[in-house]
Amino acid sequence: MKSLFVLVLGNTEVSLIPGISVAGATPELTKLTPPADAEYLFYEKPRIIDAIPVTPEGHPTPAIITKAARELANFSILVVRGGTYLAPLVPHVHISSAVGRDFRREPALPEFGEIIRTAKLLGEELNKTTIEELVIGESTPGGTTTAQAVLWAMGYDARTSSASPENPQSLKEQVIAEGFKRAGIERGQLKDNPLEALRQFGDPMMAAVVGLALGFRKNIVLAGGTQMLAVSALLRAIGEDMSRFMIATTKWVVNDRSATLIETAKEIGIITYAADLDFSKSEFKGLRDYENGYVKEGVGAGGATWLAVKAGFSPEEVSAKVGELYRRLMEMKSP
Amino acid sequence: MKSLFVLVLGNTEVSLIPGISVAGATPELTKLTPPADAEYLFYEKPRIIDAIPVTPEGHPTPAIITKAARELANFSILVVRGGTYLAPLVPHVHISSAVGRDFRREPALPEFGEIIRTAKLLGEELNKTTIEELVIGESTPGGTTTAQAVLWAMGYDARTSSASPENPQSLKEQVIAEGFKRAGIERGQLKDNPLEALRQFGDPMMAAVVGLALGFRKNIVLAGGTQMLAVSALLRAIGEDMSRFMIATTKWVVNDRSATLIETAKEIGIITYAADLDFSKSEFKGLRDYENGYVKEGVGAGGATWLAVKAGFSPEEVSAKVGELYRRLMEMKSP
Repeated sequence: MKSLFVLVLGNTEVSLIPGISVAGATPELTKLTPPADAEYLFYEKPRIIDAIPVTPEGHPTPAIITKAARELANFSILVVRGGTYLAPLVPHVHISSAVGRDFRREPALPEFGEIIRTAKLLGEELNKTTIEELVIGESTPGGTTTAQAVLWAMGYDARTSSASPENPQSLKEQVIAEGFKRAGIERGQLKDNPLEALRQFGDPMMAAVVGLALGFRKNIVLAGGTQMLAVSALLRAIGEDMSRFMIATTKWVVNDRSATLIETAKEIGIITYAADLDFSKSEFKGLRDYENGYVKEGVGAGGATWLAVKAGFSPEEVSAKVGELYRRLMEMKSP
Repeated sequence: MKSLFVLVLGNTEVSLIPGISVAGATPELTKLTPPADAEYLFYEKPRIIDAIPVTPEGHPTPAIITKAARELANFSILVVRGGTYLAPLVPHVHISSAVGRDFRREPALPEFGEIIRTAKLLGEELNKTTIEELVIGESTPGGTTTAQAVLWAMGYDARTSSASPENPQSLKEQVIAEGFKRAGIERGQLKDNPLEALRQFGDPMMAAVVGLALGFRKNIVLAGGTQMLAVSALLRAIGEDMSRFMIATTKWVVNDRSATLIETAKEIGIITYAADLDFSKSEFKGLRDYENGYVKEGVGAGGATWLAVKAGFSPEEVSAKVGELYRRLMEMKSP
């Protein structure tokens, strides 16, 4: 296959704020979610912890979609540690171990320049190979809040999605307001200063994806929901031509009325693909609840589905394979 | 380009034995040689230390040949940390931070299984891409001693080369004899137990390359001198068909009468390419001395030259480019 799926892992202290992120059973466990997601793609279950990441209510990580699409389409995965607390126990490209700081107290990412430069070197090396397309997914608990902060700082009137059916918009907005106050900026003030928006409010995933995109000059699919809007906005403001980029996400993000994916994508000038996955008939409540607004996206689920579709599989087949994988997990739990 | 150059970094405590290795200005500095070699391929000079690796007498690392070939042929490099004291400050795939132990005192590599398994996963991912060939080089100070120990344990009557014109064969043989005594084995006793030879006497580079080769099922060029004989012997004993493998090294290794590259390669059944580099007319003594038996090979110099030759450049052009790079280094030293 001429596409390479790249999974960029990031952490930010923002995920530790109670109520911000459900990408982990507890705020503390969100630290483990990025490496556990990466490991689950390679093994029957993660190694760093003995179970797949779940929401506090037990909904499975969207890595299960990515893994299902990969079992069908057999695409190649390169895991990249953009900046996490812990290294995943799979082969991975080390870019940084810096995690994003809580931007209410201090600038989020003083290391943004080094992360961009290092990731750009990786992008340049990949660019010289016969690989024609990168599909870049991410696992970054708390990342929709950093994304919304970056978008607001750059003047976009965006609301980002959430892995919870009750998008904690008021909490997000309060956290962002505190960050803007700490940094002494107004909404839109960093319109022409994307790197300062990244430094003040971003996360290492964003910096790593920006760097990869600066180095890899062919087609890039940004596989994610509203977090990838922030990356797109940064790339556009840096001067990248958006025509070689595309966002691939899921219908659950596109249909989320608490968020503004389509509107903001149009504003940025990037086209969007939405994977038509359907878990409504699943026998498992953990999956059916995706239809009720739980989880929605992550770990490049939409982009992985897109690769499966390009390889000739239908979204229905991906959905069915997700059910199989979930059954395997359930059987492991109750031997 | 359909080839990918992979540089595997390894360390072994054996390089700290005085007189064993000249892949560093002092035994202690050999710890820094693998990351510094990797960094020099990406930057004008290493970052972990402010100068390129040199022998105690000041001869430059063979990374200068790899870098020269790359400046001509523009091939893509993937750095892999097989097992080193320190991480290189370039994007690199993390496999392990285990270094080989001094086999006179204890088994060298209890972690061999984990390194092989993790590297195999990386090989499998690369195998799914459009990359058709891996050219695998290495930087492993002390590695010719571990290589000779592994070959002897497996019954090959091999002498490995050295980066010194006076190959310290008697010291190597004494160290190996102590290791065999500690392990309670005779020469040839591990003929049918390659993994035990690797565990007792090997280094993490060997384990990582074996793993890569088990995962990547297309053509593999083992870019190195006598160290790659040990890898070849391991692969053959594990049951790999040698016809998809080739050794690419330099004429300096092939012409080294203190070593047995051609004889041992024939015994193993692997074909060999020897890059016809010529530094005899260089204006720099540090390079001319390559013709007198200094350095000879490393950092995949022969394999990198082979990639340049495949891309239409002559060994003379590579040699000339090495001179240019050396001049640049000299000019940086005396501003």
